[in-house]
Order: sequence, then structure tokens, then C-alpha cells
Amino acid sequence: MIELRSDNAAGVAPEILAAIQAANVGSDLAYGGDDVTARLHGIVRDVFEHPTARVFPVTSGTAANALSLSALTPPWGAVLCHPTAHIISAEGGATSLLGAGAVMQGVDGEHALIDPDRLRAHLDSTGWGDPHHSQPSVLSLTVASDEGTLYQPTQVAELAEIARARGLKVHMDGARLANGLAALGCSPADLTWRAGVDVVSLGAIKNGALGAEAIVVFDEGAAEELVYRTKRSGHVTSKMRFQSAQLTAYLTDGLWLRLAAHANQRMAELVAELRPLADRGVRLLERVDVNMAFVELPVPAAEALPDAGILCYRITDDTVRLVTSWETTADHVAAAAAGFRAAVSAVG
Amino acid sequence: MIELRSDNAAGVAPEILAAIQAANVGSDLAYGGDDVTARLHGIVRDVFEHPTARVFPVTSGTAANALSLSALTPPWGAVLCHPTAHIISAEGGATSLLGAGAVMQGVDGEHALIDPDRLRAHLDSTGWGDPHHSQPSVLSLTVASDEGTLYQPTQVAELAEIARARGLKVHMDGARLANGLAALGCSPADLTWRAGVDVVSLGAIKNGALGAEAIVVFDEGAAEELVYRTKRSGHVTSKMRFQSAQLTAYLTDGLWLRLAAHANQRMAELVAELRPLADRGVRLLERVDVNMAFVELPVPAAEALPDAGILCYRITDDTVRLVTSWETTADHVAAAAAGFRAAVSAVG
Amino acid sequence: MIELRSDNAAGVAPEILAAIQAANVGSDLAYGGDDVTARLHGIVRDVFEHPTARVFPVTSGTAANALSLSALTPPWGAVLCHPTAHIISAEGGATSLLGAGAVMQGVDGEHALIDPDRLRAHLDSTGWGDPHHSQPSVLSLTVASDEGTLYQPTQVAELAEIARARGLKVHMDGARLANGLAALGCSPADLTWRAGVDVVSLGAIKNGALGAEAIVVFDEGAAEELVYRTKRSGHVTSKMRFQSAQLTAYLTDGLWLRLAAHANQRMAELVAELRPLADRGVRLLERVDVNMAFVELPVPAAEALPDAGILCYRITDDTVRLVTSWETTADHVAAAAAGFRAAVSAVG
Amino acid sequence: MIELRSDNAAGVAPEILAAIQAANVGSDLAYGGDDVTARLHGIVRDVFEHPTARVFPVTSGTAANALSLSALTPPWGAVLCHPTAHIISAEGGATSLLGAGAVMQGVDGEHALIDPDRLRAHLDSTGWGDPHHSQPSVLSLTVASDEGTLYQPTQVAELAEIARARGLKVHMDGARLANGLAALGCSPADLTWRAGVDVVSLGAIKNGALGAEAIVVFDEGAAEELVYRTKRSGHVTSKMRFQSAQLTAYLTDGLWLRLAAHANQRMAELVAELRPLADRGVRLLERVDVNMAFVELPVPAAEALPDAGILCYRITDDTVRLVTSWETTADHVAAAAAGFRAAVSAVG
Repeated sequence: MIELRSDNAAGVAPEILAAIQAANVGSDLAYGGDDVTARLHGIVRDVFEHPTARVFPVTSGTAANALSLSALTPPWGAVLCHPTAHIISAEGGATSLLGAGAVMQGVDGEHALIDPDRLRAHLDSTGWGDPHHSQPSVLSLTVASDEGTLYQPTQVAELAEIARARGLKVHMDGARLANGLAALGCSPADLTWRAGVDVVSLGAIKNGALGAEAIVVFDEGAAEELVYRTKRSGHVTSKMRFQSAQLTAYLTDGLWLRLAAHANQRMAELVAELRPLADRGVRLLERVDVNMAFVELPVPAAEALPDAGILCYRITDDTVRLVTSWETTADHVAAAAAGFRAAVSAVG
Repeated sequence: MIELRSDNAAGVAPEILAAIQAANVGSDLAYGGDDVTARLHGIVRDVFEHPTARVFPVTSGTAANALSLSALTPPWGAVLCHPTAHIISAEGGATSLLGAGAVMQGVDGEHALIDPDRLRAHLDSTGWGDPHHSQPSVLSLTVASDEGTLYQPTQVAELAEIARARGLKVHMDGARLANGLAALGCSPADLTWRAGVDVVSLGAIKNGALGAEAIVVFDEGAAEELVYRTKRSGHVTSKMRFQSAQLTAYLTDGLWLRLAAHANQRMAELVAELRPLADRGVRLLERVDVNMAFVELPVPAAEALPDAGILCYRITDDTVRLVTSWETTADHVAAAAAGFRAAVSAVG
Repeated sequence: MIELRSDNAAGVAPEILAAIQAANVGSDLAYGGDDVTARLHGIVRDVFEHPTARVFPVTSGTAANALSLSALTPPWGAVLCHPTAHIISAEGGATSLLGAGAVMQGVDGEHALIDPDRLRAHLDSTGWGDPHHSQPSVLSLTVASDEGTLYQPTQVAELAEIARARGLKVHMDGARLANGLAALGCSPADLTWRAGVDVVSLGAIKNGALGAEAIVVFDEGAAEELVYRTKRSGHVTSKMRFQSAQLTAYLTDGLWLRLAAHANQRMAELVAELRPLADRGVRLLERVDVNMAFVELPVPAAEALPDAGILCYRITDDTVRLVTSWETTADHVAAAAAGFRAAVSAVG
Repeated sequence: MIELRSDNAAGVAPEILAAIQAANVGSDLAYGGDDVTARLHGIVRDVFEHPTARVFPVTSGTAANALSLSALTPPWGAVLCHPTAHIISAEGGATSLLGAGAVMQGVDGEHALIDPDRLRAHLDSTGWGDPHHSQPSVLSLTVASDEGTLYQPTQVAELAEIARARGLKVHMDGARLANGLAALGCSPADLTWRAGVDVVSLGAIKNGALGAEAIVVFDEGAAEELVYRTKRSGHVTSKMRFQSAQLTAYLTDGLWLRLAAHANQRMAELVAELRPLADRGVRLLERVDVNMAFVELPVPAAEALPDAGILCYRITDDTVRLVTSWETTADHVAAAAAGFRAAVSAVG
């Protein structure tokens, strides 16, 4: 079976597993008091070209997002995000829990990207200072979006500027940040703090790590809060050095970008194989900017995919989501393409 | 330097690291939908001899405790624990956060163990049904206690019975449960659900795991809640199979008990070396039931310990805490004993 | 100036003020332990024809709503309501605070009323049992709606049945319940528990009371929780007898329905005066079922209203909201009508 | 029966009831947008001699306390108070709910007053900056204490200075502030902000008001937060003008101090009558600084009090609490004294 359900389903990259093994030497202080974690701050500062950035290893993307947002919003605030964003649709209310009752508000836009005019309109229509109304406090941008699309750095900067002009902080859900950077070819700094982002949820698990995501913080106040917020939500692990070792390997020598570029490339190859099937009713529903595609196809073809050896999520009767990962091979792509052809042929 | 600060400072047991590597084959569903996690329930049921127990892998002891308690108490409840318990003194208010404002109340007793008469008195003096007063809702017992002492199974049963008679649920903080079981020689079932315990925080990280603790649930209602509570607090990891693989190795063929017995044995050996130093002012402050000891010694001797090669926590000017782990060797014990002798000699 | 901003702006009905004075005799137990409050339960049971209903006096509609909902939803639940509902748009996130992070989800429909098909579709598309997704747990219906429209009892019953079939509880935000009952001519029982409603926020302050709203509870579990939830959110007043006295007067001999019918009637009269202005651009934007109307008019006319002696909320440049109250007189209506005529004439 | 259970059991002072009636003229904006509330800020500034103080009318002491504390502490903070304080013992965990999981820690001292040395020791033993440990963030002082005793202004200042030196804010639970001021003869300013207090819960209901307590805020940041915190907890009433009218009357021309002095005086008279009963086993257990006394007496005498016409709380078998109010008359005192004499005589 060809795995195209999620990059979360992939395994651990060998470099990262090796880093875990290498870290298993001697003893060191628990709860982040270890040397590996101490050095990780410097690595993050180098990679993000930011002199005072701080990093908090956590163990899930939901934790990274909800903790980041809780440190940026007052309890009476509203987090603005696209209606397709993971934080509003698929994290079980985590931000409202850790944010002491903060709410989320959707701001729509094409291609799963927030539209600047809609953001302006939303902020203009807010009852600022009126406690009957939740006060927009954070703008959260997802990179890559949950539909696999990307903001350009200039778009991030435009949205961030609109938000910051009204006093909002800016968060980036970077569950697939590496995929975005690899596709855009821009620097981590350009897509984040230089564009106005205060805090980044840095995804690593979808891209080859085992149990380490990270919160990268450019805002000093948020960093100070996260010292406490991570602990009291149970997100300070005792053997943090093994998470920090994963993140160190991940960010060293561009491993994260290589793994992500690999996944993006495999998806590009797969998409190239699917395009010729347009006349059989196979259609891409959205731009494919990174390692994820949404594909419309005849219902019987969608039903035939499992037997054709393809594992993927069926979003509706005639729509599937495909995701490649650092682990997807050229053989996988070839086999998946063959499977699609077989599925649509059977229909015809 | 000899590591006696904490069992948290130790590394990962080879069997567990091997299990992680072995799990890194192929792809599987994220968020606990994988086969390794599916099988873990059966392993836990076997080990605990309970037909319907469920297990939730989490990544920290604080998460295990606060989530367990949040599933057992209403928001207006009070969790009763010994004043020395980790949950009241060292988890940064996690239970109040995840428990929606539930509070904690201390019930004292000798040897860091809750006294049954004090528990009865506490419950008798409660304003039951009066909303001005937090309603005792959970009794939490720590095994081994934060001072390294153990309840006998009959003591757990007595306390649990007092609590259950007033409608309380019973939680066990088993951060060092394996050490307790190894020392008591009783079965996991006898110390937990057969003694009236509803939910156990099963520690593994202090005893050789990398990033996996677990909540073992005998109470069906609590299990149903934990499905949601774990997710929305960010404690459902995407690659859970690697946690489940650790826990599987940990609980298989008695590895957890062997590792813990090893740590206990090393502490017993160290204590045997320290007892002869009584005439030099070295005194054990508490029973040593597992792998932890609290030692009083002359202030200059305490100050001399680092130079004598000993890493340990100095609780007060003249008190230190010593903890051995699965990794502590006979050589470590010998070196630590020599270090203590040197430190007190220098004083004399 | 003619007051048409809100029924909240009106004063206290003489019967209710008299009840407060009459209650100021002797001393009595605080926090609801008094005789007036004890008798109030019986009054509510009579008025609602329900043998075990319980009542909790509170001091604001936001408190009534958020506390009711917090007693009906688990923290991981979602409260479904119309996007125009006060609870989602104008209570500052109260339900997420008191509901420990529960979220709200809008279900749309014409006339500010939830559409049954949309409700079914929303429930059908829910990921039941999947903790990534907030679980719909309560349906909240607003009577009268925030746009002044009413559900028929059969509509309430239909929606409640759809909800209950999926395990949801049903809440009614009855901030203007009396206005609804007066307009529909149905019994309180028929519009609430006989139609499937579990808990009602019973508005009184908009309709002549001073500082008393109430939560009327038909669901025993919710009532048990509210004992604690009201107290720990600061909503158990010490001199509750004065609130209970207000509610007693309000519900006795149909005072609440008379006051509401009066307000409805005045609005009907005002609307009758406005209809002839249609050719001057004055248009009703929504059905007028109770004491509230939304009126479109030329921008210059809207700007001229204050000078024409009319106090009302300007929703947009060319839209105003008008609300009558128990205190609005025939003279007020005549003066308001004259004011509108003057405002549109000036424009012409 | 002579009412000595609580000052909460008393009625409404005629001046305050008159103010409510007088406020029932015309219409005005809801939710505190009215003129009466606007003027109240000025009145509070005059009474407290503070140029920028702000006032938030609320409807219960629990609301005043929990909201005040929630605006002064981060969620990971600890509120320090005497173990007898209402906020820790009798508010059902309200501060943990509204404070997003903040905890409370007791600091003991004689006469129900916090001891400065114990406060220093508590702060010295805190693990500052260590997220395992709740961070002391607010010192809360109760005036008068729950045992009826008073801090001198110099004592308040000493404690506040110790707290502020470590970065804590200072809250005063002034449920019986008027009784304290009347007894001490000092100015409101001297006992509060000049002594280092940031926020005061200003009790009024125990001292003759109907449904109005208030939060008086000297700290600008806390005031800004309370705009939102009051609303989203349901504590912004729609007809706030009737609360503000009560508070206006209460604070005007020293009414609050006269009512409180009356209550204090009656208690002093009652105590004078009880002292001669010392040889019959009647003993005051604590200083009587205001309108509350704790009295030890033979068990049979305690049992005989109801038949002797005395309503009071029996704290233990042989202890009762007596509280006088603005409504207690000289006749009540005489009758209560006679009742006590009868009760102890019957025993003898």
C-alpha cells in the first residue's frame, strides 16, 4: 500500500533517530536544564537570524499552537484565522482551554489564505473596547495552509502589518513551515519575524522528527509567559534533552529543508502524473504549493483507490486528500500514479 | 561525578531505545490510530489483570496527573493529597488549570503518607453540598511518596475505602510505581484497582523510558473523558506509536520491575554505606523504601559533596536528597560512599 | 427624547419595586436560604406546570446564559446557536470562560431562526467521538431572537427533537421570553420543556425587574451542577430574598405577560405608523414579532432622528433598531411616529 | 428571635432603599453607560482621596474578590492570604475559576492576621522563576478579618511593603471595610492605597445595601482588565444605575461609616454584657474589634440559645459566632444578653 494519508504517518528520519541515540550518554538535568537544550537556543537564533529568539520544545502541534496563542492573547481576546485553519477546526478547542476562554474567529479568503481586505473589514467592524465583544488579539497564519497553499513573504508582511496596526500579535502555525520554506526558497527570518511574526509553532514531527515540535518566540513577553504556561499544561518533559537533540539535528545543515523539499518534490511528481487524467474526471481542486493535494475524481474511482493500493483520506464522496512525506520514494509515486490510472480505468 | 540528583537525569534503557528503533518501520496512522497503540491496551490489561483497563500514553508526569485528576473531579471539587505530594507542590498549578479551577487540599500524616484518621476528620468537617466549600472529590496517593516511602497495599485499601464511602474517586500518582511494586513484591493489581484505585499515573520516564508516561484507567467514565481531555490539552502526539512501543517494551517480561529493583537495590547499598557515618553526623531523615533517601549531614560536609564528586539536591543547608536510577552501578555506589566519607572527614 | 434604544434602558415596574420594599422586613438567611426564595421554586413549578423545576436567581442575562450552558456542556463540547445569537456575538466569551473552554458554532437560518435542515447537516458532518473536533453538546434557541423574531412552539419542538436525537441538551435564551409568550399566546410549558427544552434563561430585567434574572431548570443534573457553578462564579447573592421577591411579583398574576404584551403592543402601533412611510424609503427589514424592529431608512433621515427626539441604535448608516418596553406609552409612540415623519420629510 | 447569625441577614437601610426609588426615573443606558454610574467614579475618588481610582459595581462579595484577584494575578500565580480568609475557605474555588487556575496559599498569624515574619519566610522559600512552583503574585488582606479582628494601617503598610518588594500586588477584601474604618478612625485612603493596596473589594451589602458591592481600583492595569473580566463573568448588570445609586447613597455623607459604627457599637455593648458571665464559662475567644464575636460557652448553654431567642451560628459544640448589624437595636442587645444569661443559668 502506498501511504498518502498524512505526513504524520511517516516514520523517523535516520539522522534524527541517530541524534536520539547519540544523546543517550551520561546523565543531565531534567526539565530542560540540560546542555543540549541550552545550546538549542543558539541554533534557533542562527537559523532564524534573530539575536534573542527563544525556543520551547513541546510534543505536539496542538500544544505548540494553543500554548503560543495563550501567551499572545488575553482571555477576552479573539484569535483570527482562516476558517480552514487547524487551530479552529481540528484541535478540539485547545486554544479556548489553554487561553482561559479566548475564542476564535474565522476570516475567509481564497486558496485557504486570509484575504487582506476581509481582515481589514473584520477589524473595522470590531467593537473595540466594548467588553460585550471579544477583542481581536492575535492573527494566526498557517504555513503551509491546511489546503496545501502558501503565503508569499510579502503577503505575510501585509497581513501582519494590518494586524499590528490594530494592536494584534501575529502567530504562525508552522506545522509545515519547512515545506513552505523549501517551496518559497526564502529564509526562515524573511517568512517570520522580518514579516512581523511574533511566535512560530515550528513543526518537525510531520517532517521526520519523532516526538519534538517547538515554539520559536521572538516576543520577549510571550517567552516569559511560556516558561510557566508550558509547565502547568504538562508540556515540559523531564528528558527534554532527547527532544532538543531531535530539533538540533533537524535544524542542522539544512536537514529540515532537505526532508521537506523531498516531500514537495514527490508531490510535484505525483501531480504531474495525475494531470493527464483530467479527461477521466481527475481534477486538482486547489493549487499544490507543497506536499499536499486535494483531488476530485469520479466516485467509483475514489472507491477503487484502496484496492488500487492507495492509502489516502476521502474528504467527500468524490474528493481525496493526498500527502507525501520525507519518506515517499520515486517508486511510491510511480505505484500511486499506476493505482490512480487503474482506479479511473476501472470506472470508464 | 556520580549522578544522584534525580532518576529523571538518567538516560534511556537499551531495551526501550531498541523498541523505538524497531517501531520505525513503515507508516501507520497518527494520533494513536496505529497498531502498536491498539495492542498496548491488551498488554496493560494483562499486566494489571483487569479486563477493561484502558491506557493513554502521555509525555510527562504532570500531564498524567493533571489529566487524570481533571477526569475524576468536577470543577468545584477538591483533590486531597499529602502536603508533600508532587501534584500540590511541584506541578505549577496544573490540576487547577486542566481541572477548570478545582483546588487541592492537604491531608497530613507521618512518613509523607496520608493518615487515615486525618482523612476521616477532613471528610467529616467538610460542608457537603454547601457550594461555599470545595467538595472533596478525589483522593490522590503517591507511590512511592515524594519522600521515598511506601504505602502497603492494605494501607491503600484502607484509605481508598474511607474515600469511596464519601463518594470520592481514587487516583494514584505512580511516578515511581515500579519502584514501589519491586519493593513491596505485590502485583500491580493488588496495589491499584483491587485496593480501590480508579486511575493510575504510570511513570516510566524516571525508570528508563524516553518520552512516554501513561494514564492507566480502570474507571470507564474517566476513560471516556480522557479521549477528549488528552487531545484538547495537546497531549495526543501524532507519532504515538513510538510512545506505545516504549511502554510495550517497558511492561513486557517485567522490564519495568527489573529496572526499578535495580535502582532500589543500589540505594539500599548506598544507605548501608552511609549508616556507619552516623557518628560523623550523617543521619537518614526518613525511611528508605525505594530508590530515594533524605540525608542530614553537617553543613560543611554538605558543602563539600560537589568536590567529592557527588551530584545531588541540597534541600536545606544540612539536608540532601539522593536518588539512584536504573543506570546507577555498583561502582557509582562505591564512589558515592567514598565521596561521603571524604566530605565528612574533611569536616571532622 | 423618546427612548427606543433598548428595553434595558427602561426603569423598574411599580409592582416590582413595591415587592422589594415589602421584602425589607425582618432578617432572613443569606445566600438563598431565605423563605422568599424557598417559595419561588413552587411559583416557578406552577407557572411552568413542571413538578420538579428548580430556579436559580442571578443578576444578569449573560450569567444566566453562560451558567446554563456550562451546566449542559462538557468542556470539549460545542454550543450550537444562530450566528446572530447574543451568546455568540455579545457576551464577551462568557460561555467559553464558565464552560472551561467550550466553543460556540453558528447554525444559520432565515429570520434569525435556526433552520432545521442546516441543523441536521451540521450534526451529520460532525466527527462524533473524534477528539480533534468539538462535540456538539447543546442547542441554544433565543426567544425572541436578537432580531425580534419568534419560533413557533412546533418549531422549537422540531429543532429540539433533532438535537436530542444526537444526544444534545437544549437551552433557551429567554431574555425576552415573556414577549414571546405574549405574542404567541402559548403556555410557558408548551414553549419550553414540553417542546424539549432542558434549561431556560428567564429574562426579567428587560421587562421591568431591577436586578433579577433567573435560570429555570427542568434537567436534574444541570440543577445539581448549578448549585456549585452559581456560587463559584460569584452569582449567589447574599440578599437573594430581594431578587426572589422581584421574581415572585414578576411571575404572579401574569404580571410578566402583561408588561410584555404592553411592550409588544406599543411596537405594533409604532410599526403601523411607519408602514405608510414606505414611499419615503422607510422599510422594515425583518418580521416584527415582539417589541423590536429593524428599520431601513435614507441615511440623512437616520442622521436626523436624534434631532427629531428619537433615541435608538444605529446599526449601519441606513439602519436603526427600535425597541419598546413596558414603560413606552401611547404618547411615546405618537411622538416617535411624528419624529420619523419629520426626519424623512426633512430629507425629501 | 434576635438575629445574630450574620450581617448578611439584615435588611436594606432606608437611605439606600430611598436611593433606589429615586433612581427609578426616566430611562438611561444599560451596562453602566448611565449617568449615575458615571458620577460614582468621582464620588469614590473623593471618598478615597485618589485622583484616578475607578469603581466597578458588582453583585456579590465573591465576585468582587475573585474578579479583583483575577486582574492582579497571572494564571500561574499564587494568592497569599490568611488560612481563615473567606477567599480560601468559603468561596467555592471562585478565584481558581476566574483566575484561570491560579492557586491560593495560606500564610498564618495570630488573631487571624498575617504575620510579617511568616510572610517573609514564605516569600524567601519560594522557587522564584521556577515554573514547577506557583509564583506568589498577590497578597490579600481581609478587613475586618473573618474572626472580627483588624490590622492597624501601619500593619497593612508593613505587609504590603514586604509583598511589593517581591513584585506582588496587594488586594484588600473589604467585606467589612466600613466596620474597620469606623473602629480605627482612619481615612479610607490611609488604610488602602496609601498603605500600598492596589485593589479593594468594597463590601456594602453586609452593611445595609441591597444588591451592590464594588471593586475600587487604584491600579490602572487592573482597571483595564476588569472592563472585560466583569463582563465575561456575567457581572455587568444591565440596570447598573440602580447599583450605582445604592453605592452613591452608601458613600455619601458618611452613611457607610455611620451604619458600620452602629453595628460595632452594638457588638461592644453585647460584649460588655457577656463579660460578667465569665464565671459561668462564657469566654470571648478572640479580640472583638468590629461587629463580630466568637464566644465559647458550656455545651448545654449553646444548645439552649435558640430557646432563649438567639439566632446565631454554632461553630463547634461549645463555640458560637455572634454578628450585629446596622439594624441591631439596643433592645436586641438587651434581649440577647438576657437570652445568654438564661441559657447559662439553665445550665448551672
